[in-house]
Amino acid sequence: MPFISDKGHKMPESPIRKLVPFAENAKKRGTKVYHLNIGQPDIKTPNIAIDAVKNCNIEVLEYGKSQGFDSFREKIALYYKNININLDKDDIIVTTGGSEALIFTIATIADEGDEIIISEPFYANYKAFATNVGVKIVPIHSSIDDNFALPPVSKLEKMITPKTRAILITNPGNPTGYLYTQKEIEELIQLAKKHDIYIVSDEVYREFVYDNSKHFSVLQVEGADENTIVIDSVSKRYSMCGARIGYMISKNKKVMSTALKFAQARLSPPIFAQIASEAALDTPESYFEEISKEYLERRNTLISGLEKIDGVKVGKPNGAFYCIAELPVKNADDFAQWLLEKFDLNGETVMIAPGAGFYSTPGVGLNQVRIAYVLKKEDLEKSVKILEAALKAYNARD
Amino acid sequence: MPFISDKGHKMPESPIRKLVPFAENAKKRGTKVYHLNIGQPDIKTPNIAIDAVKNCNIEVLEYGKSQGFDSFREKIALYYKNININLDKDDIIVTTGGSEALIFTIATIADEGDEIIISEPFYANYKAFATNVGVKIVPIHSSIDDNFALPPVSKLEKMITPKTRAILITNPGNPTGYLYTQKEIEELIQLAKKHDIYIVSDEVYREFVYDNSKHFSVLQVEGADENTIVIDSVSKRYSMCGARIGYMISKNKKVMSTALKFAQARLSPPIFAQIASEAALDTPESYFEEISKEYLERRNTLISGLEKIDGVKVGKPNGAFYCIAELPVKNADDFAQWLLEKFDLNGETVMIAPGAGFYSTPGVGLNQVRIAYVLKKEDLEKSVKILEAALKAYNARD
Repeated sequence: MPFISDKGHKMPESPIRKLVPFAENAKKRGTKVYHLNIGQPDIKTPNIAIDAVKNCNIEVLEYGKSQGFDSFREKIALYYKNININLDKDDIIVTTGGSEALIFTIATIADEGDEIIISEPFYANYKAFATNVGVKIVPIHSSIDDNFALPPVSKLEKMITPKTRAILITNPGNPTGYLYTQKEIEELIQLAKKHDIYIVSDEVYREFVYDNSKHFSVLQVEGADENTIVIDSVSKRYSMCGARIGYMISKNKKVMSTALKFAQARLSPPIFAQIASEAALDTPESYFEEISKEYLERRNTLISGLEKIDGVKVGKPNGAFYCIAELPVKNADDFAQWLLEKFDLNGETVMIAPGAGFYSTPGVGLNQVRIAYVLKKEDLEKSVKILEAALKAYNARD
Repeated sequence: MPFISDKGHKMPESPIRKLVPFAENAKKRGTKVYHLNIGQPDIKTPNIAIDAVKNCNIEVLEYGKSQGFDSFREKIALYYKNININLDKDDIIVTTGGSEALIFTIATIADEGDEIIISEPFYANYKAFATNVGVKIVPIHSSIDDNFALPPVSKLEKMITPKTRAILITNPGNPTGYLYTQKEIEELIQLAKKHDIYIVSDEVYREFVYDNSKHFSVLQVEGADENTIVIDSVSKRYSMCGARIGYMISKNKKVMSTALKFAQARLSPPIFAQIASEAALDTPESYFEEISKEYLERRNTLISGLEKIDGVKVGKPNGAFYCIAELPVKNADDFAQWLLEKFDLNGETVMIAPGAGFYSTPGVGLNQVRIAYVLKKEDLEKSVKILEAALKAYNARD
């Protein structure tokens, strides 16, 4: 057999996607599957985005600029201006999804053997992107009992070594829903400046915050230009995950000129998707007001439903649209697969993402799952009922 | 200053794209620039592809499957069946351009420090993709005097070390236009099997062959399933480079399941682009017949034009739509920049890709350029005239 790379072997399977074949089989059997495993909202994409593609006038579907359309990047800068952040279009590289923005960022700031500190649980694919270039994730534990709050910065500082290149945060958090305070962001940046490392802040859920909380971006901190990189995306904001458009943002010129070399190698981001995304930026404010209300209701429905199930412990997310729940099972991975293979409640079941994949410490999170509240209230209510019945049936097996 | 990665420093600037700012400045001055630097054909994208997107009925622009739509992959298998290659849809992963297919392939089969043998000159971005994961390109020289023919396989074999993971070929070649014979392909595969390595064959220009030559794919060789990986793309075939859709193809199950983990991490290929690409596969045969004639004429126009310029030496491409030309200048990089900064012929100039970027041996190809014949005959005729006048003026400077 010819060689398979070591990193190929180490590449984690996506906890969000690895059960897909089981879900497909369940559907083939006629079982309805509620997808709580993936952050794929059922919210309608703004017409303005879809229509822009339908009305475009393309004769030759050409490559675009490697960093994205000028007009699109200017409009992104305008979006940021509206939230009081001053950017030039050249502080922005348009990427194929937030995923590629993360890939470019890690490749730009870290080599094989370098370290990036991340509070766990964290977005599972960070592990994959790090594995890809041999970068080591150094996890700092956050606890469900503490609602996954960031551990004290003094504790974080102790984990910094000469190989540390960045602290990566997701704000608000996926899968935790944790929203960073202004004070925490400012402390993190002070720490980064002191140790000459980066704060990489994944802010793709910026608009999804609840209970009158306010999002505070690393880009709002003065004098932090050299040390901050932001990951952003249209996927969640405009419910257009399938476009695959994200951005990498930094005012650090060296970072951006290096990332641009990675961008040039893959030629350009997808054109139709850029047209849709540029248009999406004109989505009226009312769209977000409605969605905000909708997600608040969804969160409350899911969390209060889960809290009522015997033996289930759940954090209260302040942002994004996920929660981590601790289940009365030993192996949530097995339970999640069982839900798809062996269980249904009146012909319906749920797909959830096993929690261990969101930790890099082995053996942690085995009894946890990530649940996305991306479906409408009635579906979430049904999903909670299915989970409740499933847990009973699962624990009653021989 | 916080850290910039070693691979970021080493990342080559794209010879195809690095002069873009100079071209933009030239255009700002009112100079018309003929783009011979990039394989961006001026051929119309088939209506069927664009219309599919315009007529699609999308409410929520959702993520797709990580390996691409089932229906799309089934149709790709059908395309292959028409050229006598039997594939199952699961032998295919749809990627974001051929670029991503190459990135997944290299990550799947090679680790930091491993080696891939490539005949040089080669497609410049191979260097970037290899640099990204620390893989070393081992070049074997092919010569313009020999029309860039593959060196004897016995010579290739001498370059194989315990770290060699693959021989990467582009068939037909970019930038050389070299078309591999069936015998060469069979010998390469024998060699790969003997040494338990891969032949990675980039066949994105498969349809662009001239003079009644016939393309022979590595997939046509019996008993080579474990050792072959093909890179393919809709970009050139249907003149839809901006879609960003390619495919990685192999019957090696371990290769595909590993590559799928990389694919899952970035969630899915772009949706609009997949819709357009799936439809493009229904493009009528007549489209290709016309285009074939058109490119043959373009090739002949360009090559015979270049051959007439004093001091210019040029290979005769049998496929793809590029040629390497040796110019009577010491530093083609400087000349290419000068063309954009200092020169025009009646308000027009040309952009060409400096040749050194297509070699990994330092100091080789300094007097060469890659010229793409992707423009209509009249534009190519003008471009040749511009080049001729420019070479005279450049060499007449103090």
